[in-house]
Amino acid sequence: MSKQPRIAIDAMGGDEGVRVMMAGVALARRRHEGLRFTLFGDESRIKVALDNHPNLRAASEVVHTDQVVEATDKPSVALRKSKNSSMGLAIQAVKAGDAGAAVSAGNTGALMSMAKVALRTMPGIDRPALAALLPTLGSNDVVMLDLGANTECDARNLVQFAVMGGAYARTVLDLARPRVRLLNIGTEDLKGTDEIRDAAATLRGAIALPMDFEGFIEGDKLASGDADVIVCDGFAGNVALKTAEGTARFVTDLLRRAFTSSIRSKIGFLISKPAMHLLRHHLDPNNHNGAVFLGLNGVVVKSHGGADEKGVANAVHVAARLLEEDITRRIAEDLANIGALAPVEMPAK
Amino acid sequence: MSKQPRIAIDAMGGDEGVRVMMAGVALARRRHEGLRFTLFGDESRIKVALDNHPNLRAASEVVHTDQVVEATDKPSVALRKSKNSSMGLAIQAVKAGDAGAAVSAGNTGALMSMAKVALRTMPGIDRPALAALLPTLGSNDVVMLDLGANTECDARNLVQFAVMGGAYARTVLDLARPRVRLLNIGTEDLKGTDEIRDAAATLRGAIALPMDFEGFIEGDKLASGDADVIVCDGFAGNVALKTAEGTARFVTDLLRRAFTSSIRSKIGFLISKPAMHLLRHHLDPNNHNGAVFLGLNGVVVKSHGGADEKGVANAVHVAARLLEEDITRRIAEDLANIGALAPVEMPAK
Repeated sequence: MSKQPRIAIDAMGGDEGVRVMMAGVALARRRHEGLRFTLFGDESRIKVALDNHPNLRAASEVVHTDQVVEATDKPSVALRKSKNSSMGLAIQAVKAGDAGAAVSAGNTGALMSMAKVALRTMPGIDRPALAALLPTLGSNDVVMLDLGANTECDARNLVQFAVMGGAYARTVLDLARPRVRLLNIGTEDLKGTDEIRDAAATLRGAIALPMDFEGFIEGDKLASGDADVIVCDGFAGNVALKTAEGTARFVTDLLRRAFTSSIRSKIGFLISKPAMHLLRHHLDPNNHNGAVFLGLNGVVVKSHGGADEKGVANAVHVAARLLEEDITRRIAEDLANIGALAPVEMPAK
Repeated sequence: MSKQPRIAIDAMGGDEGVRVMMAGVALARRRHEGLRFTLFGDESRIKVALDNHPNLRAASEVVHTDQVVEATDKPSVALRKSKNSSMGLAIQAVKAGDAGAAVSAGNTGALMSMAKVALRTMPGIDRPALAALLPTLGSNDVVMLDLGANTECDARNLVQFAVMGGAYARTVLDLARPRVRLLNIGTEDLKGTDEIRDAAATLRGAIALPMDFEGFIEGDKLASGDADVIVCDGFAGNVALKTAEGTARFVTDLLRRAFTSSIRSKIGFLISKPAMHLLRHHLDPNNHNGAVFLGLNGVVVKSHGGADEKGVANAVHVAARLLEEDITRRIAEDLANIGALAPVEMPAK
């Protein structure tokens, strides 16, 4: 990696267009002074957007392409755009070593497929996982993975996810020894599938890792602050993440209905607007933006399609932190430690 | 089943004690005039509680026992109490045909184990499932199953759960053709596990069933009102249910914090108390109480341990409806229909 870290930006992904992407990247640049960028996409639109952000313009080079991965493209279609689309070029820049990380707000399935094919999984990792930060009532967000990259996982996959999630939490949440838990349907040792119990046995034995494995956690505790990393297969993770999103929306919808159901409540609502603002701020996905594909030879961050400039800035910040802290090397070191510690308990793949 | 339906009540389960159980049963009795009860537990405490409810006393007989299944009893320990505990006797009454349904607010694992051993699964069902009603933004609650009885399920189990959930929705929600969906991590045909895709194929072919199979649903739509029955394995169902509970608590906790963060918000909160009351009413688990073990030779309903008298009344109401509508016969009829329709697509167990 070069002395001046560089991030490849897919300027064309995202529902909000080039303007918001550039505004977000410019915002992140203020937090990471040494960072440089390569911006892939429609050159004329990028340049118009950069007129508002001279600080970013000075730190960027623009690479023009007409081709864009559409939100509706299936992964198979998207893969044919690996060479020339803004998303594909951003990933190729990481593969070639020209950039240390890529950020895109485009089609998730396409990004995952392209990243897997181009960057390949790092040594010691069987499958990459999708990780994200979720809000909690505790003092920091929680890292959750896998959120949908792998529908079914064996114990070995789950152990690797735990190692990757731990490295992510140390890097992005600045925790020396993150508390890691496996998502399960009870906290007793006998609960859950063979895969989960076997993964727990391995993690309990891996005491040299820079993390504390604290057993199982149930779905009602995801946001309680009792864990810094929550590990699960992609099916359970996807169900939990979407259920949490849907329930938060459900409760706030009910609340809005309740507050508009009488004059008295309407007045109460107006008076307590600052409180509602605080609530919205805490639940705003923009404040937790930046899902990461962990386990590849290179950092790839997915920004939410609907993210605003603050959201995009958060995604770029996550990429910058992972790059600065060399997450790939950290994961490799932890895997070496766990391998030496618990070779017997690691079930064969 | 006798002309006068009878429900066996475990009077000792539940965190709130005999008094709340009896108050809840008495409340339910007002809605179901013909219903009779057998109350199992400490006779002297039950009789004291009944002094407040002459309507219930007139419709009940009391069977004394000292033995109680504790909340901390493991299923193996609880099974030894099958013959003499208040929970075990309630189930035995269903087995003997003296009662059509049993209701308990005790230890879920114990209740499930005892019910399975004593009542056995009905013909055509490989495994019973735990079903419950969840609140939605639509015009009725949604039935969700399995919520944790079966950690792993094959396609055949899922199809059977769909049939049982459909019968439950017709009975308790009064829907002629409930809309049934399978929980998945995407709505496209190719998403999910083999088990889920195979179950979908069978259900698509089962057009003679009194339900409409409408494909997949994701976690963010559980409460949207887009489905009347949501089918999944017990792992995903348990994760989704608990995540929804935890997120609802998380959002309302944030809200309380937000509302007490300034004088202005406090005043707003006081003025809009009716709105908060409405919200609480909608989210109150007591209004959706009564999880059911479906697929056994007899009806067993689990009331929430912390339910108040309204919650207990709801659980008894669910038991009464399932009994009045003879859910077991309905499930058997539907299974016969699906078997005749799609024998090839049903994967062997």
